Amino acid sequence: MIELISGGVTAPRGFRANGIYCGIRKNKVKKDLALIVSDTVANAAAVYTTNLVKGAPLTVTKANIADGKAQAMICNSGNANTCNANGIEIAEGMCELTAKALGISPKDVIVASTGVIGQPLDITPIAEGMDALISGLSSEGGVNAAEAIMTTDTKKKEIAVRFEIGGKVCTLGGIAKGSGMIHPNMATMLVFLTTDCAISAEMLQKALSGDIKNTFNMTSVDGDTSTNDMVSIMANGAAGNEKITAFGEDFTVFMKALNTVTVQLCREIAGDGEGATKLLECVVDGAKTDAIAKTVAKSVICSSLTKAAMFGADANWGRVLCAIGYSGADVDVNKIDVSFRSAKGEIAVCKNGAGVDFSEEIAKEILLQKEISILVSLNDGAFGATAWGCDLTYDYVKINGDYRT
Amino acid sequence: MIELISGGVTAPRGFRANGIYCGIRKNKVKKDLALIVSDTVANAAAVYTTNLVKGAPLTVTKANIADGKAQAMICNSGNANTCNANGIEIAEGMCELTAKALGISPKDVIVASTGVIGQPLDITPIAEGMDALISGLSSEGGVNAAEAIMTTDTKKKEIAVRFEIGGKVCTLGGIAKGSGMIHPNMATMLVFLTTDCAISAEMLQKALSGDIKNTFNMTSVDGDTSTNDMVSIMANGAAGNEKITAFGEDFTVFMKALNTVTVQLCREIAGDGEGATKLLECVVDGAKTDAIAKTVAKSVICSSLTKAAMFGADANWGRVLCAIGYSGADVDVNKIDVSFRSAKGEIAVCKNGAGVDFSEEIAKEILLQKEISILVSLNDGAFGATAWGCDLTYDYVKINGDYRT
Repeated sequence: MIELISGGVTAPRGFRANGIYCGIRKNKVKKDLALIVSDTVANAAAVYTTNLVKGAPLTVTKANIADGKAQAMICNSGNANTCNANGIEIAEGMCELTAKALGISPKDVIVASTGVIGQPLDITPIAEGMDALISGLSSEGGVNAAEAIMTTDTKKKEIAVRFEIGGKVCTLGGIAKGSGMIHPNMATMLVFLTTDCAISAEMLQKALSGDIKNTFNMTSVDGDTSTNDMVSIMANGAAGNEKITAFGEDFTVFMKALNTVTVQLCREIAGDGEGATKLLECVVDGAKTDAIAKTVAKSVICSSLTKAAMFGADANWGRVLCAIGYSGADVDVNKIDVSFRSAKGEIAVCKNGAGVDFSEEIAKEILLQKEISILVSLNDGAFGATAWGCDLTYDYVKINGDYRT
Repeated sequence: MIELISGGVTAPRGFRANGIYCGIRKNKVKKDLALIVSDTVANAAAVYTTNLVKGAPLTVTKANIADGKAQAMICNSGNANTCNANGIEIAEGMCELTAKALGISPKDVIVASTGVIGQPLDITPIAEGMDALISGLSSEGGVNAAEAIMTTDTKKKEIAVRFEIGGKVCTLGGIAKGSGMIHPNMATMLVFLTTDCAISAEMLQKALSGDIKNTFNMTSVDGDTSTNDMVSIMANGAAGNEKITAFGEDFTVFMKALNTVTVQLCREIAGDGEGATKLLECVVDGAKTDAIAKTVAKSVICSSLTKAAMFGADANWGRVLCAIGYSGADVDVNKIDVSFRSAKGEIAVCKNGAGVDFSEEIAKEILLQKEISILVSLNDGAFGATAWGCDLTYDYVKINGDYRT
């Protein structure tokens, strides 16, 4: 049983967090520095963007958790610390400041940055803000951290679940930031996860690497894979369960808990995509392979024309079929069925690759809802996949027409 | 010498054309039926979309020109005749009506349709309009055909060039329609080309297939590869030159003439992309291979974030670097230089993968122009490529939020 509970990264035992405004952003209304700390050294794992242009913090984090250990995560928003000559130095400096203030090793710090690319990040506000950041750490502070990592997000994103491993109650929580440049490819946007479940670093990495294939890698806001994408997780073992060190029943429960958190974060990231008015979900079934199902689902969710049609609540299923056709996936076009579904019901619009008569009024009512599922049956096999995205709106253009100022 | 002249598909000798409103569209302001006819049977070649969902007219055209011959091209706008149970029957019917009216073989007709996918195309208005279409055919009628193939295009697209082969003056002309669902992949949008140059069907196909790799396949408005993309060409030999039957000097001149026409049509298609306010061009040099140069140019031109930044005249070069980084191309990020150029000048914004100091005011002035070049030097080899696209604007969303009504 995976039970949803309130909170985020400080829901698990033995974690404290905080988020403050330290002065990286010009806009003082938004917090810009987050810290998550485990009471004890935790096992750690992470996955990173495949973009060849990589934020300096990712390089530093990768080196720091090569030993599978971490105790703190620090993240600033307002500046990505990417494509700067002194990027590594600054990212290492952030780890050192954090380590010194906490009395831990700088090698046990996960560091991340998000914001504008190519503008030098001044470490001064971070150094000056460190006292306030540390003194405000609390086991209720996850919400502050969730707020401090936001960029163009309109909502903070946090979730936590409770589950049982070997009779011990465990908790897993996470926070995420969207909301543009979201098109993960074997990695993802910024997500920080914590758990008090005892699990080896090796199995933690396997859990995370396996999970993202069906979650963050199936999420797209705009087709642009970020330079700073990262998901990291710390597991401090405070729940006292027998440590998970191999595949088996306990690992499966852990994977389910992890997946519950990550799917919800994906939905929140997609639904809060830049300028989005709707969460789109493309559910594919009947594919010959898992890869085909994923390719089709992602192609539909990434199609600008489909996204714009959904914004306009226009049941233009030709856009969906077109996106399946150019996806590169091996499908039999003449077997494809398409339906639209929302809280207002479900309507079939295409059968065997051709249009069917349907009520435009009912379709409109269904598509005017905030959460739309595009259901694609390939009728050609047993595999399925789900991808998440959002509609394309005037506000996406507005936000990105002048992002830097 | 390739000389630009006025006109389009009727600029070459021995071609007549017309375009009328026959009643496929509800909106009578726009013409919806085009016809181009050669006085004699011409050699013909074509390339088609790689979308698995293919418009029925493409299947019929492919069969009809399998023998390398054609004499007429008919095209309707307002309905794509795609994903309809009776699509092939209707497309063949259009060929038969055309052939009967012209007294030619239905197997010598190239047929195309563009517009909404998945709505049955009624052949009645085409049958009823055939008399008017034929009686209006003229050697000045290329402009009417150019207008009749437009969908969401705001401008007709036609161009013609004059060149010399073996002392004989030849002419090559073309018309194109954009302007959404433009992301050709080994084929392109709808383009009809005519020439009076004598060239074998085999060499004509080689010329066309070679050319599109650097032209239509390097053009993208919105990343959506259409189901009805096609470029076709008829060469009727009326110029009286010695027929081109092999590679050599004459073929090279022909390729240059063809390229002059297709590049201009690409620029017009991109600049008139749905909702576009600017033509974007990404010019890559210094790549290790031709494929890398093309991949990088196309990735930049397709990036929604880059497109939105250009709309806002925001010199956010981090978007460009990010798009290069996720392109999948093998590049050394630390060697990349980026500049922006327009009629107002050129400004360097990134050197060796990192930002350089530049004047935001000058950059803004450069980016406020209607035609912007994004110059990317990979400094890693001798290959280059150019891709064309447009900015992403509110109007793209508006046009596609309710396309069908």
